[in-house]
Amino acid sequence: MTNPTACLLVIGNEVLSGRTQDANIKFLATRLGEIGIPLREVRVIPDVPATIIGTLNAVRAEFAHVFTTGGIGPTHDDITSDCVAQAFGVPWEPHPEAWARLERHYKPGEFNAARQRMGTMPRGARLIDNAISVAPGFTIGNVHVMAGVPRIMQAMFEALAPTLHGGPPMASLTVHADGVMEGRIAEGLAAIQARWPGLDIGSYPYYRQGGGGVALVAKGQDAEAVQEASRDIAMLLRAVGSQPVQGEPTV
Amino acid sequence: MTNPTACLLVIGNEVLSGRTQDANIKFLATRLGEIGIPLREVRVIPDVPATIIGTLNAVRAEFAHVFTTGGIGPTHDDITSDCVAQAFGVPWEPHPEAWARLERHYKPGEFNAARQRMGTMPRGARLIDNAISVAPGFTIGNVHVMAGVPRIMQAMFEALAPTLHGGPPMASLTVHADGVMEGRIAEGLAAIQARWPGLDIGSYPYYRQGGGGVALVAKGQDAEAVQEASRDIAMLLRAVGSQPVQGEPTV
Repeated sequence: MTNPTACLLVIGNEVLSGRTQDANIKFLATRLGEIGIPLREVRVIPDVPATIIGTLNAVRAEFAHVFTTGGIGPTHDDITSDCVAQAFGVPWEPHPEAWARLERHYKPGEFNAARQRMGTMPRGARLIDNAISVAPGFTIGNVHVMAGVPRIMQAMFEALAPTLHGGPPMASLTVHADGVMEGRIAEGLAAIQARWPGLDIGSYPYYRQGGGGVALVAKGQDAEAVQEASRDIAMLLRAVGSQPVQGEPTV
Repeated sequence: MTNPTACLLVIGNEVLSGRTQDANIKFLATRLGEIGIPLREVRVIPDVPATIIGTLNAVRAEFAHVFTTGGIGPTHDDITSDCVAQAFGVPWEPHPEAWARLERHYKPGEFNAARQRMGTMPRGARLIDNAISVAPGFTIGNVHVMAGVPRIMQAMFEALAPTLHGGPPMASLTVHADGVMEGRIAEGLAAIQARWPGLDIGSYPYYRQGGGGVALVAKGQDAEAVQEASRDIAMLLRAVGSQPVQGEPTV
């Protein structure tokens, strides 16, 4: 069975200018893997309408799910929601329930024109609850529009997650080998990859004070094959005189 | 004058699986901004040949410079260099100087077939020095191929930087306002953006223990306009009763 795939659009100038360290990619990559909707591509794009609209239309045709982060606040540079409406060719209009939630939240007179933008959505949007700061995200078609602030994005994702239907989750086992250089085991590792064509065998060198080593990862839907491949990896490492350390399994 | 633009391809399954927190986007975004080649897009893509080749050919036609990180080590999942050759339609063959550097570096007998892959490059590649671990990156056309390990990537970028010719660097000023909510100043901020159409006025809320606030950024090539716009921002903040704190200017 092939799992449904995901693409993430990180929308905002602040990551592209280096002002902000992205904190959303790793969270979503991990959570989507856990629910069996592997993340296959990320694009970080600026607050430029033509770029947002064009990118969105390209990726929503290619992936089963598209997640966006950023650009749904009240300021002039928050243009994601409006651009999503344009991408889908539907009106951008007050969403009665989102509007009502925001109106209840603000003091009389404080639900101003800028904040009303957060209650304005593409026609047909279904709300994604925001347990942190009220203003909801939304889903339209296969596109899930979330906030950029990590704490709010995470709350929105957890509200959305039960509605997403993934394939089998990926099983993964990591073996660490201090002091081993990739080039020494590369040929043996290629042979292990060839033996387990249904798995992804990854090799990730690391560097630390006083040395380094390599983390070897076996990953795939077949948890038993992952176990056996990771035994092969440990055997390869022992053959070059290393003491492999098995990491915790993750599913 | 329009600055040359940059796109970054982060190549590797480890970011898409959530195993690794990307540390290269922020570094390159910042350094490229400093040398006047603003980063306009990032794509994180998996170790899949058709994806690497297709993406590379799309973005190298669209941006003045393309930087890649990851996939140039000795293991079977290091396929970037080979894919770049395919994207350019040139042979992937031993690069005499890269080969010689690696041969000198390894003990006799240790420059094995896997490591020889690191001395194999698209025909016409110009080397990017690697002061950390010898195996070079390379430039071909407008594509700069670098390692994924942050320390090595950074050394490669600094070796490459003097050869890159950017436009005027971006000036930027940030004003922080604790306790101010975006929705209160959004309309005033939109007016400031309208007054300074040549600048980017960005609004970035932050959340901390015991409160939060908003960081307001004025950015552009005209350093004097950035100064004036940031004075406008401070005035707007004082008008809503906040004590704005001016950040350090960055160029």
